[in-house]
Amino acid sequence: MKELDLLTIGAGGAAYPAAFRLAKAGAQVLMVDPKGVMSGNCLYEGCVPSKAVRETAELAQAQQRFQKLGLSGETRVDYAAVVAHKDAIQARRYAQHAEELAAVANLTLVKGVARLLDPHTVQVEGEQGEERYHCRNIIIASGSDVFVPPLPGAELALTSHDLYKPDPTLKTLPEHLIVVGGGYIGLETASFFAALGSRVTLLQKGDQLLAGMDPEMVALLLPLLSPRISILTGVDVQAIEKSTGNKRSLRYLRDGQEQVLEGDAVLLAVGRRPILPEGAAAIGIAADRHGISVGTSLQTRYPHIYACGDVNGRVPLFHAAVRQSLVAAHNILGGNQACDYADFRNVPTTIFTLPAAAYIGITPALAAKEGRTLVSASYAFAEDSRAQILERMEGEIRLFFEPGSLRLLGAWVVGIDAGNLIGQIGTAIVGGHTAYDLARFADQHPMSAEGIGKAARSLL
Amino acid sequence: MKELDLLTIGAGGAAYPAAFRLAKAGAQVLMVDPKGVMSGNCLYEGCVPSKAVRETAELAQAQQRFQKLGLSGETRVDYAAVVAHKDAIQARRYAQHAEELAAVANLTLVKGVARLLDPHTVQVEGEQGEERYHCRNIIIASGSDVFVPPLPGAELALTSHDLYKPDPTLKTLPEHLIVVGGGYIGLETASFFAALGSRVTLLQKGDQLLAGMDPEMVALLLPLLSPRISILTGVDVQAIEKSTGNKRSLRYLRDGQEQVLEGDAVLLAVGRRPILPEGAAAIGIAADRHGISVGTSLQTRYPHIYACGDVNGRVPLFHAAVRQSLVAAHNILGGNQACDYADFRNVPTTIFTLPAAAYIGITPALAAKEGRTLVSASYAFAEDSRAQILERMEGEIRLFFEPGSLRLLGAWVVGIDAGNLIGQIGTAIVGGHTAYDLARFADQHPMSAEGIGKAARSLL
Amino acid sequence: MKELDLLTIGAGGAAYPAAFRLAKAGAQVLMVDPKGVMSGNCLYEGCVPSKAVRETAELAQAQQRFQKLGLSGETRVDYAAVVAHKDAIQARRYAQHAEELAAVANLTLVKGVARLLDPHTVQVEGEQGEERYHCRNIIIASGSDVFVPPLPGAELALTSHDLYKPDPTLKTLPEHLIVVGGGYIGLETASFFAALGSRVTLLQKGDQLLAGMDPEMVALLLPLLSPRISILTGVDVQAIEKSTGNKRSLRYLRDGQEQVLEGDAVLLAVGRRPILPEGAAAIGIAADRHGISVGTSLQTRYPHIYACGDVNGRVPLFHAAVRQSLVAAHNILGGNQACDYADFRNVPTTIFTLPAAAYIGITPALAAKEGRTLVSASYAFAEDSRAQILERMEGEIRLFFEPGSLRLLGAWVVGIDAGNLIGQIGTAIVGGHTAYDLARFADQHPMSAEGIGKAARSLL
Amino acid sequence: MKELDLLTIGAGGAAYPAAFRLAKAGAQVLMVDPKGVMSGNCLYEGCVPSKAVRETAELAQAQQRFQKLGLSGETRVDYAAVVAHKDAIQARRYAQHAEELAAVANLTLVKGVARLLDPHTVQVEGEQGEERYHCRNIIIASGSDVFVPPLPGAELALTSHDLYKPDPTLKTLPEHLIVVGGGYIGLETASFFAALGSRVTLLQKGDQLLAGMDPEMVALLLPLLSPRISILTGVDVQAIEKSTGNKRSLRYLRDGQEQVLEGDAVLLAVGRRPILPEGAAAIGIAADRHGISVGTSLQTRYPHIYACGDVNGRVPLFHAAVRQSLVAAHNILGGNQACDYADFRNVPTTIFTLPAAAYIGITPALAAKEGRTLVSASYAFAEDSRAQILERMEGEIRLFFEPGSLRLLGAWVVGIDAGNLIGQIGTAIVGGHTAYDLARFADQHPMSAEGIGKAARSLL
Repeated sequence: MKELDLLTIGAGGAAYPAAFRLAKAGAQVLMVDPKGVMSGNCLYEGCVPSKAVRETAELAQAQQRFQKLGLSGETRVDYAAVVAHKDAIQARRYAQHAEELAAVANLTLVKGVARLLDPHTVQVEGEQGEERYHCRNIIIASGSDVFVPPLPGAELALTSHDLYKPDPTLKTLPEHLIVVGGGYIGLETASFFAALGSRVTLLQKGDQLLAGMDPEMVALLLPLLSPRISILTGVDVQAIEKSTGNKRSLRYLRDGQEQVLEGDAVLLAVGRRPILPEGAAAIGIAADRHGISVGTSLQTRYPHIYACGDVNGRVPLFHAAVRQSLVAAHNILGGNQACDYADFRNVPTTIFTLPAAAYIGITPALAAKEGRTLVSASYAFAEDSRAQILERMEGEIRLFFEPGSLRLLGAWVVGIDAGNLIGQIGTAIVGGHTAYDLARFADQHPMSAEGIGKAARSLL
Repeated sequence: MKELDLLTIGAGGAAYPAAFRLAKAGAQVLMVDPKGVMSGNCLYEGCVPSKAVRETAELAQAQQRFQKLGLSGETRVDYAAVVAHKDAIQARRYAQHAEELAAVANLTLVKGVARLLDPHTVQVEGEQGEERYHCRNIIIASGSDVFVPPLPGAELALTSHDLYKPDPTLKTLPEHLIVVGGGYIGLETASFFAALGSRVTLLQKGDQLLAGMDPEMVALLLPLLSPRISILTGVDVQAIEKSTGNKRSLRYLRDGQEQVLEGDAVLLAVGRRPILPEGAAAIGIAADRHGISVGTSLQTRYPHIYACGDVNGRVPLFHAAVRQSLVAAHNILGGNQACDYADFRNVPTTIFTLPAAAYIGITPALAAKEGRTLVSASYAFAEDSRAQILERMEGEIRLFFEPGSLRLLGAWVVGIDAGNLIGQIGTAIVGGHTAYDLARFADQHPMSAEGIGKAARSLL
Repeated sequence: MKELDLLTIGAGGAAYPAAFRLAKAGAQVLMVDPKGVMSGNCLYEGCVPSKAVRETAELAQAQQRFQKLGLSGETRVDYAAVVAHKDAIQARRYAQHAEELAAVANLTLVKGVARLLDPHTVQVEGEQGEERYHCRNIIIASGSDVFVPPLPGAELALTSHDLYKPDPTLKTLPEHLIVVGGGYIGLETASFFAALGSRVTLLQKGDQLLAGMDPEMVALLLPLLSPRISILTGVDVQAIEKSTGNKRSLRYLRDGQEQVLEGDAVLLAVGRRPILPEGAAAIGIAADRHGISVGTSLQTRYPHIYACGDVNGRVPLFHAAVRQSLVAAHNILGGNQACDYADFRNVPTTIFTLPAAAYIGITPALAAKEGRTLVSASYAFAEDSRAQILERMEGEIRLFFEPGSLRLLGAWVVGIDAGNLIGQIGTAIVGGHTAYDLARFADQHPMSAEGIGKAARSLL
Repeated sequence: MKELDLLTIGAGGAAYPAAFRLAKAGAQVLMVDPKGVMSGNCLYEGCVPSKAVRETAELAQAQQRFQKLGLSGETRVDYAAVVAHKDAIQARRYAQHAEELAAVANLTLVKGVARLLDPHTVQVEGEQGEERYHCRNIIIASGSDVFVPPLPGAELALTSHDLYKPDPTLKTLPEHLIVVGGGYIGLETASFFAALGSRVTLLQKGDQLLAGMDPEMVALLLPLLSPRISILTGVDVQAIEKSTGNKRSLRYLRDGQEQVLEGDAVLLAVGRRPILPEGAAAIGIAADRHGISVGTSLQTRYPHIYACGDVNGRVPLFHAAVRQSLVAAHNILGGNQACDYADFRNVPTTIFTLPAAAYIGITPALAAKEGRTLVSASYAFAEDSRAQILERMEGEIRLFFEPGSLRLLGAWVVGIDAGNLIGQIGTAIVGGHTAYDLARFADQHPMSAEGIGKAARSLL
């Protein structure tokens, strides 16, 4: 039986940073992944391909705005080319990852399925057959998968997988896209396709879109989305059926009434579920619907077995997984005595709709839940130079401080540069900055970051 | 003689933040500005209008790139519309400023010229005639102006004034633009017009473009500029003359040879000079070619007279002026006993070329001059997800740390999101963050900020 | 009516820092204090004289310990000399304050009583008669006083006033001192007199000594106090009476039984009450038993009237008052628009018993109340070099961190150097330091601060 | 040949923290030390025993001062008891270390001598004979030794070894102690013995005592030392000879004149020299007179061989060695890819004279050498409450800031609580605090730390 210092179940963002870190330290490392490539769902069907589509969508949207800014002419969305670009980015990154992998002698990636036989033994069923490994350390980074609800006709719908995977199922722009589910994946996709020219109807079971996020922020965001998106809440989807000409028709109940909606495609985006590796339950590593329960050291009940990334359900974002993977790596290097910890709270999160919204830390809904008081300060993009230049003056920066100390605890940004600004704000949060500190920094003009200092100064 | 708590000579970024801050505190404040509007050159002919042109230029450039990203069709630059957009932004902001001003009872802006009669008396020649004020405090914020060298035919050239002021002189896109001067204004303008479709020749007297900035960073930036820009160094311009059809011809010496270059327009961008207010020299406030000498409290030889912004020549950037203005305001509120100080070093600076370059703090050239050693870490955009998605994989993030402590002391970013990233990095610098801190923050994926943490982790 | 920029009601720690700050800024300032001297109760009968007694007490205690450390011989406590030393320190500081005051032209201190006539008018009844002032700004810093309960024979007891004021009532060391009240004043005094040679009985009404402080910390401290102190809880004092030979006898109920205790002196230390200035209630500034209600900007319902220090009951400590006074000063300089705020939570607090205990920020009792989880790390002085050298190995340093981020949120120190160490720890808290930061600092050896880094490293 | 993950040459502060850290991580670790005990010179003859003597000396000094503070009576120094106490502390700590060691299965300490045979092989000559080990990693922590100059009669002098080792050579208090060498060991010892009752003459070859420290700080300290210490500079010692009655006489040249000084004992304290382990030079690890050259990662030319503590001559202090040892441990855990670094500059340093002086970071002498400008702020203990209470009002706190940012870069404290205060100040430095931050913290009253905030506020 071969000896390994580390085996990772999965090769995504929760796995490979640790794998490379340990390999750099001289360890023998094996990653096992059913896709046989690195980066997991993020690159395969998640953040990277969706953002590839998004950037084209954003430009398409910008062009309409820029008619009055000095760029005349007609542009058309060529969805096949959008897909080709997306595929090309994926191919390029897979190639890059292959090179990175090849450069490290003591690190191997096997396409296959891993099964935990006991807390130190993993059986790998790969293309070259079955092999067993004795593993000093294991990182479970098996990720999550689209949750497909038991709905009649669910197989007629698409999932994010079908939209974003290499050589995707969806290759033409639907005239009318029906999105079931108002989480961030549903909303982002609705936003991209609306910008690319589709009409979109988004159906949400309950009342709150982007459940789990601060309702006040969500309420700021929704009115800014494209008018080509219709949102229906309180919708109970009954079935999906074939309709004429490869269309789909969707039956749903709303206010007790059954109704039918016809579209060119239906996207099911009602959630994700953790993927528990085979054999995990047998050795006592169980998962509830959120995932495998771990604390900030990412250790399971076995100090040498870690669960990182989507599979633990704490912060299902690629960059959170990367940090968790490194926490696990550091704890492994430290002999499985916890010496590094993940901060599940201060992770910047962006909903990449058009426009985007981003947040981090403690916002009012969370503060209310925890019985904490916040002092807030805001800056409206309506007064922002750059927002005016870009003709995108909607939205705001809002900062939340601890009373008395004015320590920055949280923030959201809705509107331009949201994803960038939340990085700057997050840097201030983790550094323990106060409003006094923010006020003294000469944020650049004419950049949207001006609003950070200006919001802080409104308290001073 | 009327009594004032504060009179500001100028109403730009070095003046109005202090004016509003003191007015908020209940003081009687008067701003005197020859333009009669707030924001000074920045809004009139500087950062705001130039960035308005830039954003259109960037989109024009993006469209070429996006042909292969899924947006087909033809777009044309309509320079008259670009100018109209720019003018509209300026008009909008002037209107906004007027509203902000009208909302404050004890703050007035007079269009006119201020003359210092003695350290506490200022005579204002305005549209309603002459008036004298006894001023408890004075902020000299008279800014800077384009330096026009004594060159035969200089009057045939344009300056940034002619390009960016409201209703500008230049209203059509020159087929061939000649730019004299390789400072940031010359280089930015060259970059914008190249993206809008002009052919540009940029002439630089010495060898080093962007003199005063780190040569290593400049060397990274220059090759990334549009191939439509030709740069000639070692050029000694002799004269500008009229040529056929409203063209200009420019005679210059290079390597001892006289040569002639013909273009549709010539931009003179060889520097700026401080504007010393009338009467200043008489009360002993002198300026050298950089400006009025002040320390970090911004006080002149008179504790109650401050010199902020371009006129002191320390950091001629709008946001530096804003911070300086607030420092002056705080020191005035504190009774002209210094209690707030400007940090001239840690001001984020972006050269808004396409692509842009940005820097802050201590970079190798400065470190070498000061005999300090730096530890550096970098991240190439070639490996960046977002850069790949945008098909703009050139450039890098480079961070500079103090040895031992790994405290972040400086950085540059050349390439995508430079202006945004330098804000995040600058926030870390002023907060005293170390590479250890940067490495623990989960920078977002797929955003260019990933490179900050990744660069830091390369040391750890 | 004379005009003032600032009148302070009181001249203690909540008043004079603001008075000096505004005077430095050129303001006309008057302080009105019934004692006619600066520093309030702190210097008159509080921290300074009590610490003067404490240092002698500590040395007396140290000498016993040092018998085995190499210093032989007999020392006796000369309580009259202890008092003389205390009186001398007070005299010296009053003289110093007088010099400081005399050096500032626009700042005056009047011995007298201030009465608020309306929100801007204060009448001062001083030695030179009555005067009225129109005050732009007012700081109510009238402090607090010993609360004497309505107890038969209360006039036969001493208060802290009688012990610590200049030329105090108590001039001889009581053989048996009875202390009523287990707050920090009672406990500190018990501790000093025990070290000086008295036998002490401390009576507490409820079960919890040092009510309001973390019970876990209190439980660590109490066993370390001198065996010469007997603590009785659940005591309901009935009356104090004269006994033979100028002694006092105290009747109390405990477990339903009436009992009598005889001592040479009785100290009443059952609490303090805020002193509301005359006229305050009439203009709507009321106080409950804690004091005048203010927020972090220290402003009352009138933006130009501040309540700082003991009178607001937030953090009744001299250094908290000083910070609050400066916050008020900054807010006055800023035109009574709040621009500075007091952090009521992160104030280092020491109970100066022998040994002392100190704490800051969030400790487990507060965290439990707020529903927050803490990660803790500790260091026992038993293993500390310096504690061993001093033969005082009892107590510990305990640090409390936010889970995940490991940001330092609170701490206590019980034992040697508590008052010093809490300053270092507090500096880390307000700076937003994490356990990672603490672990990287090379705390000195052989100093007790070693334990800070060592505790942090136990998590890493 | 036995396999080890780590062998440390030495078991002092530069060795055992790494040994325990790696053992905690599961590594097989061996420490080899000629003393056969942990803690090296620090516990054997350095900081711990010298501080044991110091505390008695300080109390002896305090007693004189406390005559007027209320403690009368006569105390005598019993030097044999002082030594017994010192010996007891050492014995207690050795016992404690033995317990700590016994608790870790995979960590062994051998009394013996280590010899490097090749970069991975170490031969240990111990009490049980000779053994060879194959070592994955090696930490050279062989420390330093007293440098005894080639002086006639040097063997008649004592060294710090003779004073502080367990069961020391010097067992009686010399009436007149001659100290040769004005480094911190000489000066501290002079100070202790003066306080214990000796007359001390300190001879320094050059002009500058405490060479290498900031002369301005040294000039503040020297006048505060006991008048029982006579300091002669410019002294060239020629020989030491026996004199009558077991006395020593010392011949020296000064100003060209030969002179003779007689004393009861002579302490030679002219420096220390690194101890290079056997075999090091042969494998190319050389040392100059300062020690083995290493960078901030502590790695020698072999990535797996580290040189920590006094042997590298960077910061010859126990706590610096501890931090370096942990840096080495982290780098070993990270696979000898540098991932942690020592900050040689920001190490708090105290000269434990009576009174003490302490410093950290950048002070004026260093700034001048590096061409940097500092802004300074100070606080005199003459105005300090606690200093007055203790009747020790000499000295000051002085802080040094970066201009503009007011970031704290360095400090010294001369006088009371120096060793404690430098810890708080150092915490602020490594956290990147500014004067603004220091000013907002409510430093405790009446504690000497008040001066930190007060000094900062003098700039604000």
